[in-house]
Amino acid sequence: MSLIALATDFGNGLYVGEMKAVILSRAPRVRVVDLFHDVAPQGVLEGAFLLSKSWRFFPENSIFVCVIDPGVGGDRRILALRAYRRTFLAPDNGLLSFIPDTEVESLRAVRNRRLFLPEVSRTFHGRDIFSPVAAALARRLPLARVGPGLTGTTQPRIFLPSLSPRKTKKGWVGSVVHVDRFGNVVTNLDASSRFSPIRSGRRVFRRCVRTYADAPLSRPVALKGAFGTWEIAVRNGNAARQTGLRLGSPVGQEKLKSARMWLEHMTS
Amino acid sequence: MSLIALATDFGNGLYVGEMKAVILSRAPRVRVVDLFHDVAPQGVLEGAFLLSKSWRFFPENSIFVCVIDPGVGGDRRILALRAYRRTFLAPDNGLLSFIPDTEVESLRAVRNRRLFLPEVSRTFHGRDIFSPVAAALARRLPLARVGPGLTGTTQPRIFLPSLSPRKTKKGWVGSVVHVDRFGNVVTNLDASSRFSPIRSGRRVFRRCVRTYADAPLSRPVALKGAFGTWEIAVRNGNAARQTGLRLGSPVGQEKLKSARMWLEHMTS
Amino acid sequence: MSLIALATDFGNGLYVGEMKAVILSRAPRVRVVDLFHDVAPQGVLEGAFLLSKSWRFFPENSIFVCVIDPGVGGDRRILALRAYRRTFLAPDNGLLSFIPDTEVESLRAVRNRRLFLPEVSRTFHGRDIFSPVAAALARRLPLARVGPGLTGTTQPRIFLPSLSPRKTKKGWVGSVVHVDRFGNVVTNLDASSRFSPIRSGRRVFRRCVRTYADAPLSRPVALKGAFGTWEIAVRNGNAARQTGLRLGSPVGQEKLKSARMWLEHMTS
Repeated sequence: MSLIALATDFGNGLYVGEMKAVILSRAPRVRVVDLFHDVAPQGVLEGAFLLSKSWRFFPENSIFVCVIDPGVGGDRRILALRAYRRTFLAPDNGLLSFIPDTEVESLRAVRNRRLFLPEVSRTFHGRDIFSPVAAALARRLPLARVGPGLTGTTQPRIFLPSLSPRKTKKGWVGSVVHVDRFGNVVTNLDASSRFSPIRSGRRVFRRCVRTYADAPLSRPVALKGAFGTWEIAVRNGNAARQTGLRLGSPVGQEKLKSARMWLEHMTS
Repeated sequence: MSLIALATDFGNGLYVGEMKAVILSRAPRVRVVDLFHDVAPQGVLEGAFLLSKSWRFFPENSIFVCVIDPGVGGDRRILALRAYRRTFLAPDNGLLSFIPDTEVESLRAVRNRRLFLPEVSRTFHGRDIFSPVAAALARRLPLARVGPGLTGTTQPRIFLPSLSPRKTKKGWVGSVVHVDRFGNVVTNLDASSRFSPIRSGRRVFRRCVRTYADAPLSRPVALKGAFGTWEIAVRNGNAARQTGLRLGSPVGQEKLKSARMWLEHMTS
Repeated sequence: MSLIALATDFGNGLYVGEMKAVILSRAPRVRVVDLFHDVAPQGVLEGAFLLSKSWRFFPENSIFVCVIDPGVGGDRRILALRAYRRTFLAPDNGLLSFIPDTEVESLRAVRNRRLFLPEVSRTFHGRDIFSPVAAALARRLPLARVGPGLTGTTQPRIFLPSLSPRKTKKGWVGSVVHVDRFGNVVTNLDASSRFSPIRSGRRVFRRCVRTYADAPLSRPVALKGAFGTWEIAVRNGNAARQTGLRLGSPVGQEKLKSARMWLEHMTS
């Protein structure tokens, strides 16, 4: 039996409870896992980033029900996308931007009304469409039954250009894509390069630590976080509050001229 | 095996964790679903409204453990009520007001101490009474075993008169019964009538949209929400913050004199 | 199949979702229960108190995954401790202070890298180490396989002296160890003695009630809470906000000279 992961901006409350009720009414034995419900309301970019980093921890054949959906009830499509041996249901608003067309095994528009709840509201498709469709897929409904196939080139999905950082002459320009409960400021700047401090406006955050425990108290530092990207953190403190950085803040990563300059940063 | 739904004002934390521990100790195979834990503390009216709208999404024979219980430890009764082919456990404080006596198949007071935890605290019956009783019922204990039968007329339950809107000469008077994470202001005014704007004090909210996506940015509008009642919403914004409406705020719905007046509203 | 309880300071969000993903990838049939995720960030003392009071409600052989871990990525050890017929995984930072050495059946350092995720981050051992180890234990891996044995005397664990109240000439000195969603202020002062009001600075809170329902409105009172310790509460109000007491605030409990003085308190 598959696992269904729920990723929404609904908060942990009634809306998620109703989604689980619908799912378990139709697939009583399926496992349902809350992936996240606490992204900023309408936080499509944040959700896309978190999904891009977390799907890999779920077992193969998991079904991701992704409902960050400011266009609910309008004419936006609902996508059913198969990639990485997993299935993703999401509104066509860029939430699945992290999956390149080259990885897509199947792409369909969810339109088979016989799968939906008998009465479909205009404001809560998470409960009335996404949940019963996910339950049907968990019970091995073939993906082709949810609706007509789409091809990436002739019926293109929406992509969010800002999900990935942009290359410039000087280095990379990205943004803050998540702030966690500790106030850690998560960027989308790849942390595999060792020779780059993080800049936001005129502030520079130096990578002088590898773990929170190594950081000096009360001074914001950059470190490679659990997403594999650069994070700004304050040891036992709240970096978001202390730096004023927040969701969407631009951050940059410049190439340093020499390793010596990096060492200067380390010791300054 | 039945499903147990938890509906409390405890927040998502230790109290709910302990309830699940007790339930799973005694009914290891039961499914437990969080329906909601985020109503306002002591929010009996809000809880009653949310329960009234959500029980139908759960499978038959689900057991609802409803613990919004400011009178815990006092002499209030705990009810076990069978209706709609489902079972509801709740303090007798109006939380089950949405179930009319005519729908009640069985009504009992929970009093069988042998079902409780050996030590019962005075402040947390959710863990010490509700959870073990729910676990026993999930394991097919007959409802009659929880305690003596009550009849609606001779031992009346408590009802909350304000759960449903009140009819006046001019129209309907109701109240705000829920504010969701997006700041959508949910009223208990039935949205099946098309010809009624929503009024709160001197403000009038016109139904000019069917979905959030249709709404103008930054202007509060009324629309039929996922509960089937009128909601005040701001597209991509927070209606509660913008309007000042909050839990308990009175709202009214007046009959319009003509369809023409409605069209004026639509275009104004 | 065992039950796994998660107790963290991560909040209910992505981090917990990823932990569950890892656990269920490796132990698809295990039950996972959220015990709590809402203690103060880095709230080791608060977590230790809550764990000390809640483990007993879980079935035998439950596995507690306790991740309040400000030292993550540093050289702190991760402990696997068997006591009370249950298994506890936690960083060695005092989180398991409530388990005296005399109750420990087995104590090991978690070091077997073959159990971990292939890539271990420096900031999120909850996902990369604790979760896969818990999944392995749930699938009946012998505890001895997680790493080398430790003896309490030669390789002592860290204990938090402030978890338990301290005896003085005048009585007991403890602290506020938890504030719940209702604003109830939970102390670590044992509430089995009937003859002691609670003092904080110059304020005295008298035990004049047994339940919230008995309390006068708007006046803070002390009562025996669901943890078996003294709590300061305001009926239908928020005691933390009203008194200014918060996590870590010192509280004292003095011996009264006579039962008569107690009665005076009761009636004053």
